[in-house]
Amino acid sequence: MQTPFRTVFFVSDGTGITVEALGHSLLSQFEAVKFTQIRIPFVDNEEKAREVVARINARSEADGIRPIVFTTLINPRIAEIVHLADAFSISYFETFLSPLETELGVKSSHTVGRTHGSTDSSDYKERIEAINYTLAHDDGITDRDLEEADVVLVGVSRCGKTPTSLYLAMQFGLKAANFPLIPEDFERGKLPGTLEKHRSKLFGLTIQPERLAQIREERRPNSRYASLANCRHEVEEAERMMRREGIRWLDSSTKSIEEIATTVLEELNLR
Amino acid sequence: MQTPFRTVFFVSDGTGITVEALGHSLLSQFEAVKFTQIRIPFVDNEEKAREVVARINARSEADGIRPIVFTTLINPRIAEIVHLADAFSISYFETFLSPLETELGVKSSHTVGRTHGSTDSSDYKERIEAINYTLAHDDGITDRDLEEADVVLVGVSRCGKTPTSLYLAMQFGLKAANFPLIPEDFERGKLPGTLEKHRSKLFGLTIQPERLAQIREERRPNSRYASLANCRHEVEEAERMMRREGIRWLDSSTKSIEEIATTVLEELNLR
Repeated sequence: MQTPFRTVFFVSDGTGITVEALGHSLLSQFEAVKFTQIRIPFVDNEEKAREVVARINARSEADGIRPIVFTTLINPRIAEIVHLADAFSISYFETFLSPLETELGVKSSHTVGRTHGSTDSSDYKERIEAINYTLAHDDGITDRDLEEADVVLVGVSRCGKTPTSLYLAMQFGLKAANFPLIPEDFERGKLPGTLEKHRSKLFGLTIQPERLAQIREERRPNSRYASLANCRHEVEEAERMMRREGIRWLDSSTKSIEEIATTVLEELNLR
Repeated sequence: MQTPFRTVFFVSDGTGITVEALGHSLLSQFEAVKFTQIRIPFVDNEEKAREVVARINARSEADGIRPIVFTTLINPRIAEIVHLADAFSISYFETFLSPLETELGVKSSHTVGRTHGSTDSSDYKERIEAINYTLAHDDGITDRDLEEADVVLVGVSRCGKTPTSLYLAMQFGLKAANFPLIPEDFERGKLPGTLEKHRSKLFGLTIQPERLAQIREERRPNSRYASLANCRHEVEEAERMMRREGIRWLDSSTKSIEEIATTVLEELNLR
């Protein structure tokens, strides 16, 4: 029997990033089906809506089976046009906006493009400032201005501190510094720099030595740095230090950046 | 009349980041209502589900009006428990999974936690590699390995290149280098470094001089660098250079990082 396949369109009047993520979480429940996924952003007028319909219909004909179309289109006229396409439509706003209006007892404003916030909003400025702060405080560059940090990640080199810090800044507008724990710190038996003054903001990442060795091997093949024995030693020392200093920590080995960042928020009671 | 208010919960068996984003896009349509928003991630067993119910019910009582609850809970038993709470529930999976099963003609697997992908997947490794590449190629640090870049952003200092590059890496797994266009480049009348060899990957960001002056003023108050006259001059020269070199560009002044990144993808035909 042939593997079932289906073309999927994500159609939005904004970037379509959110509807694509939510669509993914639904589609990932159907492992047996092979999906081809196409995002069409910025569909914010009727002409573009008609072009989208033509594109979906062409695909339907070529595939011999109607595509799935996920939409977040706030303008009812544009949504109406797109939903004329020969497709199975999952319409986020049409499904939920009307029941929500009833529940809240007010009409919605049907305004396009609010998802990511205005660039003039204080939230948005905070995010940009947090990204700048995080870049300036990556990988132990400096311990200046640590009193401004919302969180300070610590852990051995290559355990996921940098991507997590950047995600915390980008997604949540948090100022996230990070410091590597290195052999010199273990010998001294002390946290690097002035970190002990900021203990309440510290959060540790640890990792399985086997996975760490694999990651380091890709960067510095056949080095002592990447050897399993050395990785085992560093991870053990780092965990001992975090335990002694009372630092909460998480094993990042099988977790995505999003999961690590969310756990950090929960554990440090941020937001 | 009192401003209407409502408490909103985002309840997920994963990070809840996606359902929160989608919830925001719905709630932003109700400007008249003041929402207090609470995200509860990792609700992946029945005990946690019952704790969530207690929390929602307590809030309902305290508020004197039932909260709104958005859920992405793939396990039907956990979803069932959470939906017993005294709240108005918007359930993403319960609403869409069953019609999608009918359309696709297969049963869903009801597996938790696939949204952000496995950390062993090639997609995930690509993202991490892209973040490392992007950090190593921020702000014109080096023009080594530019042949590996998926996109190279150019523009005057502080027009949004760094956050956009990081977002392209983090969200889309793209290797994004960026280079500032500086007065020396305008005097020489040439793109910096070896950029002209990579013209097909270049994308420009520009910005309204008034906004640029405002952003720069926050970093270096009363400097020539931040003065409106200098910002006008730099933006004009940068646009002239991009026009002459045939580089597509976008005005970032009123656009979010997500919107800029999405436009870059579209314009360079990436993915």
